[in-house]
Amino acid sequence: MVQFVKDGIGSSIIAAIKAQIHDGHYKPGDRLPSTRAFAAEWGTSRTTVTAAYNQLIAEGYLITKPGARAIVSTGLQRAEPASPSNDRASHRLSAFASRLLKFPILPAGQAARIADFRYGDLSGMDFPMLAWKRALNKAQLRRTPRLRYGDPQGLASLRVALQGYLWRSRGINCTPEQIIVVNGSQQGLDLCARLLLDPGDFFLMENPGYLLARQAFVASGGIEISVPVDQEGLRTDDLPAARLAYVTPSHQFPLGGVLSATRRRALLAWAKQTGACIVEDDYDGEYRHDIAPIPPLQTLDPARVIYVGTCSKTLSPTLRLGYLVVPTPLRRAFTDAKRLTDRHTPHLEQEALADVLANGAYDRHVRRVRRRNAERREVLLKSLADHLGPSIVTEGAGTGLHLVIWFKNFAADREGEIQALSHAAGTGLHPVSTLYHPSAPRPAQAGFIMGYAGLSHDAIMRGIGALATAIAAR
Amino acid sequence: MVQFVKDGIGSSIIAAIKAQIHDGHYKPGDRLPSTRAFAAEWGTSRTTVTAAYNQLIAEGYLITKPGARAIVSTGLQRAEPASPSNDRASHRLSAFASRLLKFPILPAGQAARIADFRYGDLSGMDFPMLAWKRALNKAQLRRTPRLRYGDPQGLASLRVALQGYLWRSRGINCTPEQIIVVNGSQQGLDLCARLLLDPGDFFLMENPGYLLARQAFVASGGIEISVPVDQEGLRTDDLPAARLAYVTPSHQFPLGGVLSATRRRALLAWAKQTGACIVEDDYDGEYRHDIAPIPPLQTLDPARVIYVGTCSKTLSPTLRLGYLVVPTPLRRAFTDAKRLTDRHTPHLEQEALADVLANGAYDRHVRRVRRRNAERREVLLKSLADHLGPSIVTEGAGTGLHLVIWFKNFAADREGEIQALSHAAGTGLHPVSTLYHPSAPRPAQAGFIMGYAGLSHDAIMRGIGALATAIAAR
Repeated sequence: MVQFVKDGIGSSIIAAIKAQIHDGHYKPGDRLPSTRAFAAEWGTSRTTVTAAYNQLIAEGYLITKPGARAIVSTGLQRAEPASPSNDRASHRLSAFASRLLKFPILPAGQAARIADFRYGDLSGMDFPMLAWKRALNKAQLRRTPRLRYGDPQGLASLRVALQGYLWRSRGINCTPEQIIVVNGSQQGLDLCARLLLDPGDFFLMENPGYLLARQAFVASGGIEISVPVDQEGLRTDDLPAARLAYVTPSHQFPLGGVLSATRRRALLAWAKQTGACIVEDDYDGEYRHDIAPIPPLQTLDPARVIYVGTCSKTLSPTLRLGYLVVPTPLRRAFTDAKRLTDRHTPHLEQEALADVLANGAYDRHVRRVRRRNAERREVLLKSLADHLGPSIVTEGAGTGLHLVIWFKNFAADREGEIQALSHAAGTGLHPVSTLYHPSAPRPAQAGFIMGYAGLSHDAIMRGIGALATAIAAR
Repeated sequence: MVQFVKDGIGSSIIAAIKAQIHDGHYKPGDRLPSTRAFAAEWGTSRTTVTAAYNQLIAEGYLITKPGARAIVSTGLQRAEPASPSNDRASHRLSAFASRLLKFPILPAGQAARIADFRYGDLSGMDFPMLAWKRALNKAQLRRTPRLRYGDPQGLASLRVALQGYLWRSRGINCTPEQIIVVNGSQQGLDLCARLLLDPGDFFLMENPGYLLARQAFVASGGIEISVPVDQEGLRTDDLPAARLAYVTPSHQFPLGGVLSATRRRALLAWAKQTGACIVEDDYDGEYRHDIAPIPPLQTLDPARVIYVGTCSKTLSPTLRLGYLVVPTPLRRAFTDAKRLTDRHTPHLEQEALADVLANGAYDRHVRRVRRRNAERREVLLKSLADHLGPSIVTEGAGTGLHLVIWFKNFAADREGEIQALSHAAGTGLHPVSTLYHPSAPRPAQAGFIMGYAGLSHDAIMRGIGALATAIAAR
């Protein structure tokens, strides 16, 4: 049995011999001392030295022949000294990487003293701690005899549970085979980009629209056709041909319009005529405050629409749980791509979600956070009316977890100034201009996207108060 | 306050009006009954009818003017009836998708009655249940006030913990800024493929080699240069120029050779000379049974080597936890790509891993599973010697969680036959031929890759016994 090299004297011997080879004390072909001689010299046992020699043989520094002493590997002379490259290794990157690196670097968010109206944040207090912990514990107890890679599409139990949820909550009629569990909607969008767009292909994008969707399609080489939106969502008159359209029909991001029935049908007719796919991002479909949810586009043409859903707005963005409903002919491409991308989504989260979907805890939770966020919205609308009433216009408040405010008396180029003023007063604001295509027309006023799902009533009221005071004192 | 549409009569009204619009009973511009008249007709309240009308207005089916009765939206006439496309929507897929769909479909593994020697499986009994559960609970208790998207590179606490682990276990000297936490090594490989390869670029690949690495690079458009391996790993004589080389220096997958010092230096010299990146997949570096771990290539040239590590062989493949160490100049590209791909790896797993790395539980666990797998290896080697001794040759058993057996008296084209025989006897075998490049030369004998980390001693012994009996009875 060959000995292990333990930490201590063994590793010192190895390091010493390597150093002597590197600095030329031992040259290729040189014979090393016998293990006996070496052990005596170092005051250690022959076993230790033998283990060290074996290690060096395994690493290729030494070679041995039966019965003979170890010699320094002759191959070593051919290579240059093993030192880190000093050439700062100019790495040639792919076209994908070049496109990626052209995106503007978004400034890291600074902490806001009173309230940060950053869109996408949820309140930690809303997370269903107990139900989720119970589900995780249950999943952990289901100890399986073998740990092995799972189904790239996602756990069957989760896909069955999602099928039921999608039917009862969104009217989507699909099979578990059409569902692909992904790491949040972003991975779903990236998979769409990779599978459906080649460099130079056109895609339609709402303007303003969701930045990370635009970037996913552009990074894949897609060329954006920027389509304006109004209160009824995407304008569908005269849509040019494209391979793919990205839309947020339930609640246009960020302006909040709901895609009208007429436009839904026009968009689907366009897709059918041009052979395009529609990517429907239903990112906050759970949150309609005044009216019942509107059935997704997917229900009108399941063969043309890829539906993207997420738990980032109901549970937490840090869980990275989302799902796609894909047309059956696209199932294999999406499954294979998911496997190649990261094998599958982690099992523990999938099991926990399947559990809370199946036992009703998820639906109860969604009802609760819907109510809570409706209250936050009321508080925000009232604070805005009380403090900024005549100087702003609000938009898109009927649904979702954010709204947009436009300052009547500030031009768009003063967004940065208002943001700085506001931040100094303790309130984090986020300009809407970052969501517009840089070369497309945009409103003349300064506008901000106001997410409220992460804030307490008190923080909302104080935050808007501070903002109003700062603006008035300007 | 606008009323919600509750399930029941309200949805029936909505469905009825939509149906009447679709079948032409109501035409665009037609006036609907007043809410009072409609309520009387349906025997319900005006409130219910008003809520239904509001829903239809929100969906764009109806339009209203103040004081006037609702009319059917005039825009509806322009679109075709909303019915699912019957054209089976032929979806045009990208070149990436086409390459992906060309890969052979691997047959789904059938359950083996006695033992499945599938590589990559771990035993559920080896998972550190208690330590992991404790770490998860602790992470869950750290309730944060705001749930928001995290750092695409991974949690800072995990990257600091990984820095320490990589230093003490692998001799890697890196900063936390060079570490990118990924969803298992597969995501790391896919990111390398996307960032470093353009369609038509060459990449070097060990032959035989890891199938999902090859597929990631090929799917990105890379053209494979298949390089033979021997007992010292990748053959580095006369390497042609390429953009990237994929290697498994610590334990060549699947044949088990350890890349010699000479070849390590030759490979690095090649990379420096040609400007290539080296992707070093250290997939089972924790498992060396006879000698101490060999320092990764990364330690010799941190500017040229991207190191890929994983917890799939130490904890579980279902967790999807891996990490990259990238040269500093590549940090931004990898971070941005990770953000675009899926924002970041789930926080809960990251926190738990950071915790077990920091408190020593991970290192203790690794020592324990290393010992357990060394024992499994001994049992497998003994069973093979006892039952199949003279008829096979084993290869690559000194390290890792698998070995390869070659049948001296069966030609390569009989792998399928042996596999079927074996499966009928209750033992799952996996041919090594799937890991060879289809058009490169391969050994003449039938060979199988034997993973043992998922099996009990008893299953290993009985499985090899059954295999031997089946072959003898043939």
